[in-house]
Amino acid sequence: MPRTNQQFRLAARPQGNVKREDFDLVEGPAPAPAEGEALVEIEYLSLDPAMRGWMNDTRSYVPPVGIGEVMRAGAVGRIVEANGGKFAEGDHVVGMLGMQRYAVTDGKGVTKVDPALAPLPTYLGALGMPGLTAYFGLLEVGKPQEGDTVVISGAAGAVGGLVGQIARIKGARVVGIAGGPDKCRLVVEDLGFDACIDYKAGDIAGGLREHCPKGIDVYFDNVGGEILETCLARLALHARVVICGAISQYNATEPPKLANYLALLVSRSSMTGIIVFDWADRYSEGAAQLAQWLGEGKITAREHVVEGFETFPETLQMLFTGRNDGKLVLKV
Amino acid sequence: MPRTNQQFRLAARPQGNVKREDFDLVEGPAPAPAEGEALVEIEYLSLDPAMRGWMNDTRSYVPPVGIGEVMRAGAVGRIVEANGGKFAEGDHVVGMLGMQRYAVTDGKGVTKVDPALAPLPTYLGALGMPGLTAYFGLLEVGKPQEGDTVVISGAAGAVGGLVGQIARIKGARVVGIAGGPDKCRLVVEDLGFDACIDYKAGDIAGGLREHCPKGIDVYFDNVGGEILETCLARLALHARVVICGAISQYNATEPPKLANYLALLVSRSSMTGIIVFDWADRYSEGAAQLAQWLGEGKITAREHVVEGFETFPETLQMLFTGRNDGKLVLKV
Repeated sequence: MPRTNQQFRLAARPQGNVKREDFDLVEGPAPAPAEGEALVEIEYLSLDPAMRGWMNDTRSYVPPVGIGEVMRAGAVGRIVEANGGKFAEGDHVVGMLGMQRYAVTDGKGVTKVDPALAPLPTYLGALGMPGLTAYFGLLEVGKPQEGDTVVISGAAGAVGGLVGQIARIKGARVVGIAGGPDKCRLVVEDLGFDACIDYKAGDIAGGLREHCPKGIDVYFDNVGGEILETCLARLALHARVVICGAISQYNATEPPKLANYLALLVSRSSMTGIIVFDWADRYSEGAAQLAQWLGEGKITAREHVVEGFETFPETLQMLFTGRNDGKLVLKV
Repeated sequence: MPRTNQQFRLAARPQGNVKREDFDLVEGPAPAPAEGEALVEIEYLSLDPAMRGWMNDTRSYVPPVGIGEVMRAGAVGRIVEANGGKFAEGDHVVGMLGMQRYAVTDGKGVTKVDPALAPLPTYLGALGMPGLTAYFGLLEVGKPQEGDTVVISGAAGAVGGLVGQIARIKGARVVGIAGGPDKCRLVVEDLGFDACIDYKAGDIAGGLREHCPKGIDVYFDNVGGEILETCLARLALHARVVICGAISQYNATEPPKLANYLALLVSRSSMTGIIVFDWADRYSEGAAQLAQWLGEGKITAREHVVEGFETFPETLQMLFTGRNDGKLVLKV
């Protein structure tokens, strides 16, 4: 039975929001694995804010996706054909397999996962890059101490929701920022944050005054823009600001401008950019701890699964309009 | 012989540049020291960029100078009357004695200095707050490693000149940024920097490409604004940006906006504000090391001494127009 592959290839560098026309949807036979390789049938694809940056032709921490190349994407799938490599038919694996239905892998950067331990989409969320980003970014750079006030933007998102739960485990008081009453309720009731500020209600500064009376000790930023600026004005002495992302800025056609950076001087605080790749040699340590907390019920994994490979460009856009709750995953 | 005191008292909060009318010059008899106090005849006064911030009625690391209060200023002087306190007549002392000819002190925050070890103005520069700021800010936050490229703005200034010299001692390659060919020559020839970029010549980015081919490992910022933004675009991986000041912004009537802060994310770098007060419990360690380097000729202390107590408002302005070379000191 011949297998038909479909791939989203980058056709144009988007201006502002990503559109369907920025991709070519290309169909063809699935490739055959060479000696030492395996063919993966992809079951779930990870949709991440970082994808937007990968489409720009600018210097960044990874090269941009080239025009005509398969869009870069994390994925989990099943080995359907093995040709002597490290995987056997039927194994489930996770890795950067690309926005396509079938991928060939030589095993490099691809890891076997156990579907009995956690549902497959969780390997793209709490047990995947978002989980590791939250774990290392918070603990290694944010360094929350017991009793600290930790504020997290994008609190209902894949990374933000985990950051707050880990900060709670470490004894911090945790305040989320999210858009709308439903997300705020979820953040407090399902994820156990101490409070959540609805930025769509307008008064972020007032919310911070109310919920962070002694100032912010750790601010974990996923959004940038006005929310970051408002948080900078409320830093406690020697606060740590973790810059994990800036989703409010990724579709902007003008470079962002950060007012208020001199708040760092007044409060003698630090602001540090993080990329999870820098802890690659410690992924297994992080994943083991996250799996243990998940097993003990100390953290909740939340995926927002959308069905339909072909909906990729529109589904990706949900990240930028704030319509996802938890890790956004595309089911093939 | 009655002693006549003169004081510059803050009369109004300046808008933009500081003007003479923002102060009242008040004359009266010098105060008599009470039991345990001493009277200091001030000989040299420290003029610092931070003074501009102290005049604003905004939250900062120290309270603003109140309207009607003597302007806050570091000073060195001689004890002319002692009333049983820790100082004897003839002692030389340094401390925050205020913008005046005579000050009474109970000894708190005031330290005896040895005029045989270094000229008195040096206790306001290399052996004073600027020296300690350079020492702790660079070594504790910038953390230069041997072979690192360290870039310093305001390189001909009180702090910047010392940062570069200390970085050289630690084995770094040191690139200054200063205004005009004369300052740049001084920075390279007298202070031993490896190179200096003249920002007034216009092409800061080109200078950084030329002198920092592998990027910037430590950027010590005294100026803010466009120079900071340009340096952020040239950071090496895991660079450390030390925010010591922002002299280009202090007279601005609009809050500064920092473009390019997401360079911190791309390069996984940190940006940290510093205030020397945070190392108050280690001042003696820093001062001892600086004095040793000074004695060994490994660092050069440079003061720019202007005569005339009454010229204070105009002389202060030299800092903001870049007309001083080295630590600006007012001789009473």
